[in-house]
Amino acid sequence: MRTPAEVTIVEVGPRDGLQNERQPVPLAAKRALIEALDAAGVPRMEVGAFVSPKWVPQMADTAALVGELPRLRARASVLVPNAKGLEAALASAVPEIVVFAAATETFSKKNINCSVTEATARLTEVIGEAKRHGRTVRVDISCATHCPYEGPVAPGTVAQLSESLMAAGSNELALCDTIGKATPNNVRDVIEATAVGVPRAELAWHGHDTYGQALVNALAALECDVTVIDSAVAGLGGCPFAPGAAGNLATEDLVYLLDGLGVRTGIDLGALAAAGAQITELLGREPAGRVARALGRH
Amino acid sequence: MRTPAEVTIVEVGPRDGLQNERQPVPLAAKRALIEALDAAGVPRMEVGAFVSPKWVPQMADTAALVGELPRLRARASVLVPNAKGLEAALASAVPEIVVFAAATETFSKKNINCSVTEATARLTEVIGEAKRHGRTVRVDISCATHCPYEGPVAPGTVAQLSESLMAAGSNELALCDTIGKATPNNVRDVIEATAVGVPRAELAWHGHDTYGQALVNALAALECDVTVIDSAVAGLGGCPFAPGAAGNLATEDLVYLLDGLGVRTGIDLGALAAAGAQITELLGREPAGRVARALGRH
Repeated sequence: MRTPAEVTIVEVGPRDGLQNERQPVPLAAKRALIEALDAAGVPRMEVGAFVSPKWVPQMADTAALVGELPRLRARASVLVPNAKGLEAALASAVPEIVVFAAATETFSKKNINCSVTEATARLTEVIGEAKRHGRTVRVDISCATHCPYEGPVAPGTVAQLSESLMAAGSNELALCDTIGKATPNNVRDVIEATAVGVPRAELAWHGHDTYGQALVNALAALECDVTVIDSAVAGLGGCPFAPGAAGNLATEDLVYLLDGLGVRTGIDLGALAAAGAQITELLGREPAGRVARALGRH
Repeated sequence: MRTPAEVTIVEVGPRDGLQNERQPVPLAAKRALIEALDAAGVPRMEVGAFVSPKWVPQMADTAALVGELPRLRARASVLVPNAKGLEAALASAVPEIVVFAAATETFSKKNINCSVTEATARLTEVIGEAKRHGRTVRVDISCATHCPYEGPVAPGTVAQLSESLMAAGSNELALCDTIGKATPNNVRDVIEATAVGVPRAELAWHGHDTYGQALVNALAALECDVTVIDSAVAGLGGCPFAPGAAGNLATEDLVYLLDGLGVRTGIDLGALAAAGAQITELLGREPAGRVARALGRH
């Protein structure tokens, strides 16, 4: 098995995790979570989203949140869906902007109400504008292996879309198994196809645990030399727009694996699990990850 | 990634899974579970244990159970701890006998009340007797990577014990991560050490999901050409004698992975999940595996 010396974990709990909660999480609790994750040594963190409060009330406090965050050790990012969201993000000091596109026409239509080509044109503008303002940009490609409407997605389609969006100036591209249907062969296939046009150092992997494959898929990505991996503390999350999607890969389970393999993450597992315990207690449920539950039993 | 064309799953839910239940599961429910698993295409199944009803009341009905089982397609096995248990097993028609030893002195003392050397001597007798009666024999090595009392276990120790027990005539040897602490490097290390003296075709891997590593560890075993993997439907189980141990690898999650990788198991995932749903409903809780929960939502 080939594993890198170091892996960069992008903690997406505060955004992708909490975006799915029926009841929006109070600002103070989000802030406490972000600070606890930062103290645990998380190197990068998606902290919020500048999206329509009408559609995503869970993220309505992102401006207030990023306005009052202390200086984090982690590099913070926010998700923006369009030029309007970008404008709000540029009014903040957040160093990294995340935009997203879908690999399939049906998901694109249902999720962002335009074709993939239209979405690419719009994102090209958004990416260019963010870069002109000195921000780091990441593109998330939803449904990079499977689409809830169209089924398995051809790696070549994803590779082509990825190359277009990276050509628009993005610094990084995350291949997202939005509904958690992939197995390691799918991960490898889409990474290998995409890596023809995009350097592996600029690729990231983002997986959900719907079918219990999140960890085995993350390891497959590492074995393909993709060393930026998304996960959410306590396995928070799910996508309200993606039928059947369960939570993200639990950061605790990923850190346990990497600690065992001797791969550096900079994250303290105990402190991370404590941050997860704090937020899941507030949400009134058990953490989804196994490590968190095992540690909670002691 | 190297994966075999075919994997043999040993379903341990009826024994290792249900042995941990506070309230023994009624005989009729066990029988229904075994029949449902058999109908789902499980090729091998640990159905019960001839152990002291005083210590393990959950298995007190094994004689009755194996006496009234219909002819299964699966090869059935029963666990026996000693000569007395073997005697009871030999009075049944069960074709395979499972015996167990621990890789560490402390676990051996606490679990079976004798040293590893004493245990080996006793098992040598039991294995010989079972073989003389024409039964297939498997040895399970507990704590093959980690011991709850002694911590990480040296692969060389496990290899040496394995070789002795195989020399006693056992047909198969299962390396067991009893408390679920291993990561894939540990799996590989113990398999490679053991494979020096025992053919890989005679090795099996058995892992628990305490720290969320069960699936990634099973895949690591496959990549080491070990193609017999234990798992329990609905992730049933845990070991009452091993502090901190959680359930077994969920068979559904393993079958989902292998289906995705194009590896044959002979198991129908839908029928398997239905068998798991039936038993967990009886137990009054959700299945531990992700696939079962995802399918349950549809």
